Amino acid sequence: LAHADYQSIRNYCQSYHPADIADALSSFPDSEARVVLGHAPAPLGAEIFSHLDEDVQASMASGMSRKDLAGLLAEMPPDDRADLFKKMSSELQENVLPALAQAEREDIRRLASYKEGTTGAVMTSDYAALSADLTASQAIDRLREAAPDKETIYYTYVVDEQRRLLGFVSLKDLITARRNARVGDIMHKDVIFSRVEDDQEASARKIQKYDLLALPVVNGGDALVGIFTHDDALDVITQETTEDMEKLAAITGAHEAGVYLKTPSWIHFKNRAYWIVGLAALGLISGVIIHSFQASLMHMLILALYMPMVADTGGNTGSQSATVVVRALALKEISPKDTFRVLYKELKISVLLALILGGLSWLKVMFLSRGDNIPMGISLAKAGFAIAAALALQVVTATLAGAILPLFAAKMKWDPAIVASPALTTVVDITGLLIYFTSAKLILGV
Amino acid sequence: LAHADYQSIRNYCQSYHPADIADALSSFPDSEARVVLGHAPAPLGAEIFSHLDEDVQASMASGMSRKDLAGLLAEMPPDDRADLFKKMSSELQENVLPALAQAEREDIRRLASYKEGTTGAVMTSDYAALSADLTASQAIDRLREAAPDKETIYYTYVVDEQRRLLGFVSLKDLITARRNARVGDIMHKDVIFSRVEDDQEASARKIQKYDLLALPVVNGGDALVGIFTHDDALDVITQETTEDMEKLAAITGAHEAGVYLKTPSWIHFKNRAYWIVGLAALGLISGVIIHSFQASLMHMLILALYMPMVADTGGNTGSQSATVVVRALALKEISPKDTFRVLYKELKISVLLALILGGLSWLKVMFLSRGDNIPMGISLAKAGFAIAAALALQVVTATLAGAILPLFAAKMKWDPAIVASPALTTVVDITGLLIYFTSAKLILGV
Repeated sequence: LAHADYQSIRNYCQSYHPADIADALSSFPDSEARVVLGHAPAPLGAEIFSHLDEDVQASMASGMSRKDLAGLLAEMPPDDRADLFKKMSSELQENVLPALAQAEREDIRRLASYKEGTTGAVMTSDYAALSADLTASQAIDRLREAAPDKETIYYTYVVDEQRRLLGFVSLKDLITARRNARVGDIMHKDVIFSRVEDDQEASARKIQKYDLLALPVVNGGDALVGIFTHDDALDVITQETTEDMEKLAAITGAHEAGVYLKTPSWIHFKNRAYWIVGLAALGLISGVIIHSFQASLMHMLILALYMPMVADTGGNTGSQSATVVVRALALKEISPKDTFRVLYKELKISVLLALILGGLSWLKVMFLSRGDNIPMGISLAKAGFAIAAALALQVVTATLAGAILPLFAAKMKWDPAIVASPALTTVVDITGLLIYFTSAKLILGV
Repeated sequence: LAHADYQSIRNYCQSYHPADIADALSSFPDSEARVVLGHAPAPLGAEIFSHLDEDVQASMASGMSRKDLAGLLAEMPPDDRADLFKKMSSELQENVLPALAQAEREDIRRLASYKEGTTGAVMTSDYAALSADLTASQAIDRLREAAPDKETIYYTYVVDEQRRLLGFVSLKDLITARRNARVGDIMHKDVIFSRVEDDQEASARKIQKYDLLALPVVNGGDALVGIFTHDDALDVITQETTEDMEKLAAITGAHEAGVYLKTPSWIHFKNRAYWIVGLAALGLISGVIIHSFQASLMHMLILALYMPMVADTGGNTGSQSATVVVRALALKEISPKDTFRVLYKELKISVLLALILGGLSWLKVMFLSRGDNIPMGISLAKAGFAIAAALALQVVTATLAGAILPLFAAKMKWDPAIVASPALTTVVDITGLLIYFTSAKLILGV
């Protein structure tokens, strides 16, 4: 490549999809990728660049000349451009801003000002807007002229002089309408929209629910300031579910297009260590409980042997209900006001599971500990019953805890996924041990 | 509602979005919902119906007259219609088919024939296709006429007489082209497409990667048979990630628009019991191992006290790496050929975690068991070291197992998520116990 002639780079860039070229460039050293981008035909270079991961973009940008970087920023889609801007060092930001046109500078500053995770931080400002007075055919002419600069011309928003949203028309509405029909007459007036401060996932789910291509986004003054598109929805949902899955496994950290192999091990370690170390610290409580029953364990070793089984089963059933409830909350299938219906349902499910798992654990004790010596003249069947009863009760408790903790978190506007994992593990460990030793005391008298 | 006048039903249906009306209808008894649908203005009724969950659709359909049902099917989008058809009883299927037009009958039969989970089973047959000889303005005229019947007219596919895919043009291309430009000259020839038998998630990820509105789908004979749209992509990705999350929590079962509160408890129980009971059975192996070391435990009770801590920590760290690797596989960030790079990375991460967690567990033993009597003149520090060393080794083993099992599953074309959960739990339990007791034997000599 270092010696490649520039004509073949141009040909290469024109015969593949920008997303595929970006994939290929990701594995090149920055300096070589910059050569390829620099020689790609003009708008294509920015398009390929926009398909790169943000981290790759930032590292490539830091090595570019001010002029090249400004040229690239001018041609990038506004949302990608603002994201890259946020990733740049403040020196680089201050260096490149003066090289941009006034309008671009303001656009970048505005889009970059919205908080991560809000709809404003994801939307783009390249939307098509029209006035209600135009005819359908005038509107199509405007869209035809505007097409190269707009993210989509299939949805157009109708605004008044204060850019307040009056309605929307699709290109389909426009081409199927009479040529001289007024936009104000054919537009849909009940527009589904979001606000800049709305959660990005909520906006993505609106796109999904109403099968939209784009969702208009308004600011505090009800003025249209951007659109959130169907491809934003796919990316946001992918990112949010990845983060939910990772939180359920007690992993912290934002997952923005985070490509596994490219994330440094150190970052992986930090994200994983956070809760795991926290859990180890919280484990002290379980440790104290186990130690306070040390005498019972010494007296009746069989209890020690089945302690891990009860802990494991509680953990497994608790994580089942937690996962289901966290997911149902994320998909808006349930909300905190359904708490009693959810608990009733989980109670039924857990009782069935408890009967089966309790029965199985009794059989397991009878089989594994056959011939073992149990003190105080207690029969194996009775010891097995105490263990099985504790396990069954723990299945019900853990399942209910797995359901109630995320619901409570949602009620308090906390993140259900993160509460579901470390908090659940700790709660279930503690209740499990208390149930286990209480059951031993009540049934076996130790 | 039972006494409501039909005019107000009509007004209601026209003033809300079909998706919202469907939401409201879901909580009505079937008979009342049928009344509302029956009195909604003609195409709107089918649109509202299409937004209902498939189970609700099926139960409502079973109570409709043959004529009403046939009328509804005729107006539903082909993909939703085929899905409903698959859910109907075979009597109902045979009853309604003769009431449909020949073309609709064949369309339903064909779409219903694709296997669940394939692109063919999700696509719709309402796509717009053109011949390459038309001019841009002729093409727009055709699309204008076809618009009411097509899922989208923004992407049009160019086909030859055998319906083989030659290229695609967007409506944006058409309206920005010269009026008399030939479609064959302005179309994009490198079309990104899927095959009917391709996995639905792979098609959804293509839509996401290339920012498409729709993806053309071809059959074995390379003929265009349908399109897979951006809203299909959102639904498929939501469904597939829900299933992956549930599998990671050892829950089986397909999750198709499965609304938590509407799924019977019995189904939830079945989906959860499957692997949990399996795990309880596999737990016999751990039970046997624990019992074979019963003598050591009796001799040195301190080992029994820390057995749950080692098991928990192994489970937690293993599920962290398993979650990350399962997700990276699903997002195509890694593939089985990256196995060594992934393992090297996980090895580094796990060694760091092992050092911290091992250190913490040593401190925990020193604190919790201070003053305990340990036999054979072994110091508490030494016993703590044996436990901490076992825990550290278990962290590394569990992390690597969590990474290697899903990669191996992907290599064998099995489902990484399901292997990651129950198989991992079992493997980690067993390795954990063996490491624990071996470490006790080597370091403490018990």
